[in-house]
Amino acid sequence: MGGSENGATDNQNKPTETSLSPDSIINLDQGDPTLFEPYWKKMGDKCTLVIGGCDLMSYFSDSSNICWFLQPQLGDAIKGLHRVVGNAVTDGRHIVVGTGSTQLLMAALYALSSPSASHPVSLVAAAPYYSGYKDQAEFLRSGLYKWEGDAHTFDKDGPYIEVVTSPNNPDGTIREAVVNLGEGKLVYDLAYYWPQYTPITHPLDHDIMLFTFSKCTGHAGSRIGWALVKDKEVARKMTEYMQISSIGVSKESQLRAAKILGVLSEGCQHFRTADSENFFEYSHRIMRERRESLQNVVKNSKIFSLPKFPQDYCNFTGKYTDSNPAFAWLHSKEDIDWENLLREHKIIGRSGERFGADPKYVRISMFSPPEAFNLFLERLSAIIDNTNGNVVGGEESSIIK
Amino acid sequence: MGGSENGATDNQNKPTETSLSPDSIINLDQGDPTLFEPYWKKMGDKCTLVIGGCDLMSYFSDSSNICWFLQPQLGDAIKGLHRVVGNAVTDGRHIVVGTGSTQLLMAALYALSSPSASHPVSLVAAAPYYSGYKDQAEFLRSGLYKWEGDAHTFDKDGPYIEVVTSPNNPDGTIREAVVNLGEGKLVYDLAYYWPQYTPITHPLDHDIMLFTFSKCTGHAGSRIGWALVKDKEVARKMTEYMQISSIGVSKESQLRAAKILGVLSEGCQHFRTADSENFFEYSHRIMRERRESLQNVVKNSKIFSLPKFPQDYCNFTGKYTDSNPAFAWLHSKEDIDWENLLREHKIIGRSGERFGADPKYVRISMFSPPEAFNLFLERLSAIIDNTNGNVVGGEESSIIK
Repeated sequence: MGGSENGATDNQNKPTETSLSPDSIINLDQGDPTLFEPYWKKMGDKCTLVIGGCDLMSYFSDSSNICWFLQPQLGDAIKGLHRVVGNAVTDGRHIVVGTGSTQLLMAALYALSSPSASHPVSLVAAAPYYSGYKDQAEFLRSGLYKWEGDAHTFDKDGPYIEVVTSPNNPDGTIREAVVNLGEGKLVYDLAYYWPQYTPITHPLDHDIMLFTFSKCTGHAGSRIGWALVKDKEVARKMTEYMQISSIGVSKESQLRAAKILGVLSEGCQHFRTADSENFFEYSHRIMRERRESLQNVVKNSKIFSLPKFPQDYCNFTGKYTDSNPAFAWLHSKEDIDWENLLREHKIIGRSGERFGADPKYVRISMFSPPEAFNLFLERLSAIIDNTNGNVVGGEESSIIK
Repeated sequence: MGGSENGATDNQNKPTETSLSPDSIINLDQGDPTLFEPYWKKMGDKCTLVIGGCDLMSYFSDSSNICWFLQPQLGDAIKGLHRVVGNAVTDGRHIVVGTGSTQLLMAALYALSSPSASHPVSLVAAAPYYSGYKDQAEFLRSGLYKWEGDAHTFDKDGPYIEVVTSPNNPDGTIREAVVNLGEGKLVYDLAYYWPQYTPITHPLDHDIMLFTFSKCTGHAGSRIGWALVKDKEVARKMTEYMQISSIGVSKESQLRAAKILGVLSEGCQHFRTADSENFFEYSHRIMRERRESLQNVVKNSKIFSLPKFPQDYCNFTGKYTDSNPAFAWLHSKEDIDWENLLREHKIIGRSGERFGADPKYVRISMFSPPEAFNLFLERLSAIIDNTNGNVVGGEESSIIK
């Protein structure tokens, strides 16, 4: 979710074309993680799922479970993967499956609000925050919850929900709650708390933790997310949300996610002795190479910069590793109209304003197909040469306003 | 959707056990259409779907389509099936896919309401109406739309949305809009407008028509529904709802639905010359047998009755056929507390009150597994013997109040 995408214009809903020319528009607005495809291709039949015509016909998966539409195989695979990766505590937790973690955030808002309250519960997230939260909180004009924006400036009395996105979308930082008032409830969006994006320092142990298949393995089309929930009543209400809004979650996608997460876990168990890369090694390498290529281009700029992250010890790999965020959060010292500047070069990014931040920031997806990423680097080099010239010469330019 | 289910108690979320004893609870609250399983089993590999580990990874399916997450194969299969069955016009329509038609009703409410309006748009349906509509309209306390109950008594000025469910859930009647005021918008929920449930008299041609894979073929676990939408802007806004609430719909389920609907269409094309039953012949036979068995039991009652439907000419089968509703809508002349009466006999139905109707009505799913259906008939016979005795003897009884 932290990386899921609600485009606004026609172009924003068009992925980059597969065969690129100098005129091609490169869409780096969305975080569509197709770059991990080659790994799964290499796995051949190991991850192939076969579903018979008479399988999975019932609404029900396991009526003894609070989340009665969760396929037990998926529940087991989720627990197995967290155990191997060490990123979240699952013992004693209820698992609620959703149509992506997007639907689960909606479910959490429903579960944590009170229909009998006189006022809607406030929803906040520390800026820069994922642009989708605001859309999700506002689009139905719910009387249950109300988007109140940046958690840093929130000072209302009464109940509130803070979404803590860690690593954060858009800027990749590791986060904790910032409001810390009495009546607060926390939802941790951990879409990117996987070894390819950040060192896994310890298993997180919060009341509500959201994960998504999309960013873990790159299978965004399956629309599978899961919540690890401590409180039984919260899990029951989240399940009720799913029931009323969509009567459960695709069983085909659940089975496929179970299979792929199972293969992933197995690969990880033997990874120090295995002949071939496991998925997290592969994806970490790809993400690191991209981050380094981008850093090499940006370091030539006199006005642009990227966030810097310290190395940290990753319990999963047993090594000190770097952070490789799923998005580049480009900053400009000068007053740049990023949207226009990028559009002049046929690049679509997402302006910092959408994230409750300064328009001097822009978010760029690091997930594009290789050709698109390379073309982006070329065009960014040209932009940097151009802006450096403007800065050096002290001239006014249309792109620095 | 018309048949999709939001249970309230623990028991209501438990399907009937597979091995039955005289003490078993028979859950006839939900319309879980597993009774069609044997047909799909018989089809063997024809409907088997194989998905490779690297397939379907992107959020996108077809960026040239308004509904950018609709798999083109599914769009084609939907059009092909409506063409063969003759139940709905698809030419020039936009198809929006949803996580069941449940999510599509939510999307239609969003698309047909106006965020700038000073008042929420009224939502009505003629009683008895599907109990889920009220839950869906109310659970988020949206400021966009407001549940106003029975369309028959609706007389407010201003914009409104009427959901027309035809054949109707719970009572199986063929329906038209009842409000017919100037500013009304109509959503047709056509979950049961398929040959096994009702004669297909003509292709419907309304602005928004909702269908669901669950009730068409019995694949409820896939959570696939579709809307046929005339107006481009409405289709765009419905797509936007899906985007914000769940970023699209499972691609695995879409591909499977495409495959199964394709096989279904193919079977229908040759059905007058084919050796074997096509799916609609099979399912019509099963539903007819169930209706007749139930009618045979109920006709012995002095106080209970079922709705009667005239035969009509079905363009699909080329014959006069009966209606075989997915639910029995049992009525009692006497003041029966159906909920208690059925529970005493370990049967779970859904009281007429949930459908905006009299508690003298109860809805009973006709979709249960065969053993459960037969046990239900046995128990209903006993209830009928008992109530007949009470009526004949003129005695007061705890079950007639």
